[in-house]
Amino acid sequence: MRTMKGTKPFIAITMGDPSGIGPEIVLKIFSNPKVFRFCCPLVIGDLSVMQRVKKLCPLRIKFNTITKVNEGVFRFGTLDLFDLGNIKGGFKFGRPIPSLGRSMVEYILKAVELIQKGYVHAMTTGPINKTLINGAGFSYPGHTELLADVTGARKVAMMLVGGPFRITLVTTHLSIENVPKSLSKEKIFDSIQLTDRALREKFRIRNPRIAVASLNPHGGEEGLLGKEEKQFIRPAIDKAKGLGLNVLGPLPPDTLFYKAKDDKFDAVVVMYHDQGLIPLKMVAFGRAVNVTLGLPIIRTSVDHGTAYDIAGCGKADPSSLFHAVSLAADLARKGKKRS
Amino acid sequence: MRTMKGTKPFIAITMGDPSGIGPEIVLKIFSNPKVFRFCCPLVIGDLSVMQRVKKLCPLRIKFNTITKVNEGVFRFGTLDLFDLGNIKGGFKFGRPIPSLGRSMVEYILKAVELIQKGYVHAMTTGPINKTLINGAGFSYPGHTELLADVTGARKVAMMLVGGPFRITLVTTHLSIENVPKSLSKEKIFDSIQLTDRALREKFRIRNPRIAVASLNPHGGEEGLLGKEEKQFIRPAIDKAKGLGLNVLGPLPPDTLFYKAKDDKFDAVVVMYHDQGLIPLKMVAFGRAVNVTLGLPIIRTSVDHGTAYDIAGCGKADPSSLFHAVSLAADLARKGKKRS
Repeated sequence: MRTMKGTKPFIAITMGDPSGIGPEIVLKIFSNPKVFRFCCPLVIGDLSVMQRVKKLCPLRIKFNTITKVNEGVFRFGTLDLFDLGNIKGGFKFGRPIPSLGRSMVEYILKAVELIQKGYVHAMTTGPINKTLINGAGFSYPGHTELLADVTGARKVAMMLVGGPFRITLVTTHLSIENVPKSLSKEKIFDSIQLTDRALREKFRIRNPRIAVASLNPHGGEEGLLGKEEKQFIRPAIDKAKGLGLNVLGPLPPDTLFYKAKDDKFDAVVVMYHDQGLIPLKMVAFGRAVNVTLGLPIIRTSVDHGTAYDIAGCGKADPSSLFHAVSLAADLARKGKKRS
Repeated sequence: MRTMKGTKPFIAITMGDPSGIGPEIVLKIFSNPKVFRFCCPLVIGDLSVMQRVKKLCPLRIKFNTITKVNEGVFRFGTLDLFDLGNIKGGFKFGRPIPSLGRSMVEYILKAVELIQKGYVHAMTTGPINKTLINGAGFSYPGHTELLADVTGARKVAMMLVGGPFRITLVTTHLSIENVPKSLSKEKIFDSIQLTDRALREKFRIRNPRIAVASLNPHGGEEGLLGKEEKQFIRPAIDKAKGLGLNVLGPLPPDTLFYKAKDDKFDAVVVMYHDQGLIPLKMVAFGRAVNVTLGLPIIRTSVDHGTAYDIAGCGKADPSSLFHAVSLAADLARKGKKRS
């Protein structure tokens, strides 16, 4: 593994969908000298796209195209870029076209390769278009599953980090109607175990305390307000406790986040998207970061999509990407201390 | 209608379940001189119970039993009490017994009578036990339906007020599984309309802005993540807009509360319990107040239950009751200005 520059890990940032806001927010975080204080960042993308974005946002940043990590200068004012040169033909910002699907996957695969070969310590991904990557022949619902496949990870989960919260989702993008039927003891247990391992091994927390939310209001009121607590959640918690994990729950969701806000838990496992995202965005809107649990590598991501409606307008907010790179660097430093 | 003492309305506070924390929190708010600054409070309950509670919490408060409102002294140091003398036989705090069911209903009925006869301006209710009132022959799921029945209200809804939020629930105590099948265009429209009327007539807000949450994450993503937005929520919003109401939505729940926190809306209509209660309790834990919309009278309530686990221990927190009385007084003053 490449040694860090002092305590600064090398972070590969993928440009994401060229027609979304990815290239713009990537450029913008390089205009913030703070990024260089905590990491040596490099971008994997396409020079022609980054040059177009620079015209939209005239920032004093030079592009340094590299083919090896050690060609990077890693200094404020320069953006070190692996130019994959894979954007052929024109496209418009905000107008995704099928040919971009393969390009955005190639950025991701290159980042994984750099980590696996030991040249960089972690990766942070810009937003992609899931329909386009499917159209290009990569049949994954998103980044997470693609990364699980190429790194050989069996079980993965999405954790969102922001403000005082670390929140793992048992189910992600599902209608409320489909949430109860998608839960199982195994899924909930896996989420608890992945959370526990990540807190210990990646976040370096000893004996982490994990709170598990109930699906139903008031914790299901002993079955009066729903059966999933008895059927799935409590058995999953009992199994985790049996393995010595420090787990609490199922806890009524409305009081749980009030407590979690005051750092009472190291992480919360929630049953569905909005159960976690409502409290998270209330306190960390625009600053939340997505971390994939269960991968053998460190991967963080922005908490937003391609935002086609504002792509090419120069007004995209790079905060989430900044925080995602910062967390990747933090986790990489913690990982380094161990080895 | 009785005239106010200056701008101070008369508020009837019901003691709630004698075996719960109701009597204790009622006593405790009388130990706070602030209550007398904004209202003339009186209690409807039972003297023997209040005396037992005073032994637990030795506060310098005299009981003044009254049979008419004008016998009250309404001064700090005295608790004016309509003693219904309806607790026969012993009971233990924290141990609800069937005979208490009728007693707690009688406090509520007396408060309604005092309002309807024009002796008091509003009521605030202590927590009751729904199973016990059903056992006593009053077949209502709770306060709200009982009050709707005795005041002849056709449509009612629950609004929770706390911090920057006013939140109306379309469904209340239901399992997540049962939420989607309980929604209808009519129910959602009624909730919007009751909210609009309350904001105009009770809260005195001109042209109030109401945000309506989607049921599903990301607003349902045009049907990909659920059908209820297209089926029920949007048609209900369109109907409300057709009547000139200032309504927005369906809005993705995770970003909605981040915006609502900054006062962007006068109220939010949510589809299920935790969708509203998670954000509410995060910012207003212990200070949230329940207001019943659609009644011809003003009724506020604590946002918690009987809390049998701590009843009789002297450690119950009276904050929610204090805020409930304060809001009742506020709404009564606003109502008075009009007439």
